[in-house]
Amino acid sequence: MLTQETRSLEFSRSDARIAELLELVQRAEDLKALNDLAEWDQNTQLPQADGAGELRGHQMATLQGVLHESRTNLRLGSLLDALDEAVKDAQFTDADRGLVRVTRRMFDQATKLPRKLVEEIARVGAGSFEAWRRARERNDFASFAPWLGRTVTLQREVADRFGYAETRYDALLDLYEPGMTVRKLDALFRPVREVSTTLLRRIEASGNTVDDSCLEGDFDSEKQVALSRTLLEGMGYDFSRGAIAISPHPFTSGLSSPYDVRVTIHPDRRYIQASIMAAIHEGGHALYEQGSAESLARTPVAGGVSMGMHESQSRLWENAIGRSEAFWRGQYAAVQKAFPEHFASVDAATFARALNRVQPSLIRIEADEVTYNLHIIVRYELEKE
Amino acid sequence: MLTQETRSLEFSRSDARIAELLELVQRAEDLKALNDLAEWDQNTQLPQADGAGELRGHQMATLQGVLHESRTNLRLGSLLDALDEAVKDAQFTDADRGLVRVTRRMFDQATKLPRKLVEEIARVGAGSFEAWRRARERNDFASFAPWLGRTVTLQREVADRFGYAETRYDALLDLYEPGMTVRKLDALFRPVREVSTTLLRRIEASGNTVDDSCLEGDFDSEKQVALSRTLLEGMGYDFSRGAIAISPHPFTSGLSSPYDVRVTIHPDRRYIQASIMAAIHEGGHALYEQGSAESLARTPVAGGVSMGMHESQSRLWENAIGRSEAFWRGQYAAVQKAFPEHFASVDAATFARALNRVQPSLIRIEADEVTYNLHIIVRYELEKE
Repeated sequence: MLTQETRSLEFSRSDARIAELLELVQRAEDLKALNDLAEWDQNTQLPQADGAGELRGHQMATLQGVLHESRTNLRLGSLLDALDEAVKDAQFTDADRGLVRVTRRMFDQATKLPRKLVEEIARVGAGSFEAWRRARERNDFASFAPWLGRTVTLQREVADRFGYAETRYDALLDLYEPGMTVRKLDALFRPVREVSTTLLRRIEASGNTVDDSCLEGDFDSEKQVALSRTLLEGMGYDFSRGAIAISPHPFTSGLSSPYDVRVTIHPDRRYIQASIMAAIHEGGHALYEQGSAESLARTPVAGGVSMGMHESQSRLWENAIGRSEAFWRGQYAAVQKAFPEHFASVDAATFARALNRVQPSLIRIEADEVTYNLHIIVRYELEKE
Repeated sequence: MLTQETRSLEFSRSDARIAELLELVQRAEDLKALNDLAEWDQNTQLPQADGAGELRGHQMATLQGVLHESRTNLRLGSLLDALDEAVKDAQFTDADRGLVRVTRRMFDQATKLPRKLVEEIARVGAGSFEAWRRARERNDFASFAPWLGRTVTLQREVADRFGYAETRYDALLDLYEPGMTVRKLDALFRPVREVSTTLLRRIEASGNTVDDSCLEGDFDSEKQVALSRTLLEGMGYDFSRGAIAISPHPFTSGLSSPYDVRVTIHPDRRYIQASIMAAIHEGGHALYEQGSAESLARTPVAGGVSMGMHESQSRLWENAIGRSEAFWRGQYAAVQKAFPEHFASVDAATFARALNRVQPSLIRIEADEVTYNLHIIVRYELEKE
């Protein structure tokens, strides 16, 4: 049983078509990994001078152009035509079938977009990031608005080129969650919104408020990074296959899954919950990527299968585990050790309870378990427009 | 006069050939910057797992292949043929002439090497780095020897493909110092070796030894990085266009000169001279790159002109400035502030004198002003073989 399962994660390199397909997608994956590295660097280390961001935009646009070329290679199309049906045969493995399915999707998407558009999206994306970073520091949405406008225009063009059956937004949803549509999401979100709103009203009406004052104070950023490191190690995140850094917005980069999967946090000096929950949330993403089979590395089958599956992992860790008292009974000592002056007289139960305070706020990634879903729904309703 | 000088650093974009040439070399420079970023990352942050290094090798090989393609573009050859002579005309600027000269050199070199060889060099280079890093930690040259052998074989092939008039090594010297040959270097190094050896013998015979015990102790690595940061700022290095990190061997990366020029140090916990002199040495390289004209950015004319010019800057800073008492009269307070327990009772003159101890050692980058040149000559004699 184990043998069969293991074999199913190996590619049939003895088949000449699979071998050639692998060679082509591996080169594309190499370029994609470098793109992910350029993004990671832009978020964590790129110098702040205007020129540095502008040049990075050019670099990423050029790389996206080359990546697009490798993904639209005509030979890739011929191989896929030959393998789409053939790969269903019993002699092929699940890995082969996954490779053909995912590469077919990638090829069909890429061939619908002209290279110039792909390069422009990369350039605008890098420019937007710099504009957003600055606007965020100065709390100045107006300076970012034109960049957002350009992104919306470009994404509408992408949707129109991809095509869709019912709603333009379907084409973009499908990019992140294959097969997902507005029709399905509307039906899925309706009860979630109702239940969440009702629950939120009941909590607000109850008059019970959780005291989370123990999470406020003055927390050194580097010490928060060190604490996140300890918590991630406790979760099973493998630092010999990863790294942690600070960025304006926390994220996980599976740049060479499962061997190189990195996370970031954004420490808030005044409020320690932000970095702790981000570390656990990103840790959930990262464990998923680090758990990818080694035999799939350097192919588009490595890493997570969709945004939905990814968030199921990160939010399971964040909410079901990271907000439970049971978890903190094991991990709280690390928090006390990192900030003894703050937490010496706070016990694990009080700390865990503080992490469960429910209160509407404007920032999704700092939202609680109840209002987080409402943040997602608001964003969905906005993007659907 | 200033106007003319400024204009000479601008490209004549109104000339259609210059404009097209620029477009082609800019794309190549974008890819080269990403290659430099991948190297920077491998040195400073890449996870230690075997798989991460192996995948990085593939990524860099694929990128080098694409970069090679962009450098051997036939259109580049046609444009250069049209411009080689034309650019001497008075209507063109120094920047135009530099662009044509440097691109011609790049094109001629690239077209002499097959893509497969370029990819193989990148793959072996990345593998060698990982092998070297591990061998270094375990002091185990034997495990690195086969990698060195492969590199030597590949570099001999490069030299043979480039061609040379007298000595195979000339072809490789020219890569780093255009026009340099073994004949010229032999003549240049002979008196340097004689003078250095004589001076070293006189110093040893004098019985005078400089007491550098104040440089030994237990110095926290992060504090050494912070001190290097302060010293670099004192030198005029601009952190809004740079970054500092730790790597196994110190280096400077002008990955997007002048906007993104980064340095590394390798702190030795027991001996503070290593990181201090590395910061000043790399700072010299970095100031040179950061001083490159903005109008030349994203072209091969940006950054330093040769290894010799580069070392003239780094070693001027390291030896003529960084080992002078005058320099430390201004900067020593930062050293005392970083490590008060070590330096409270040591004065600037004693500290500066300690940095001038002359003693033969095995490690070039930690060598003193007298024996450093001998290190270079020994290495040269070895590589010439």
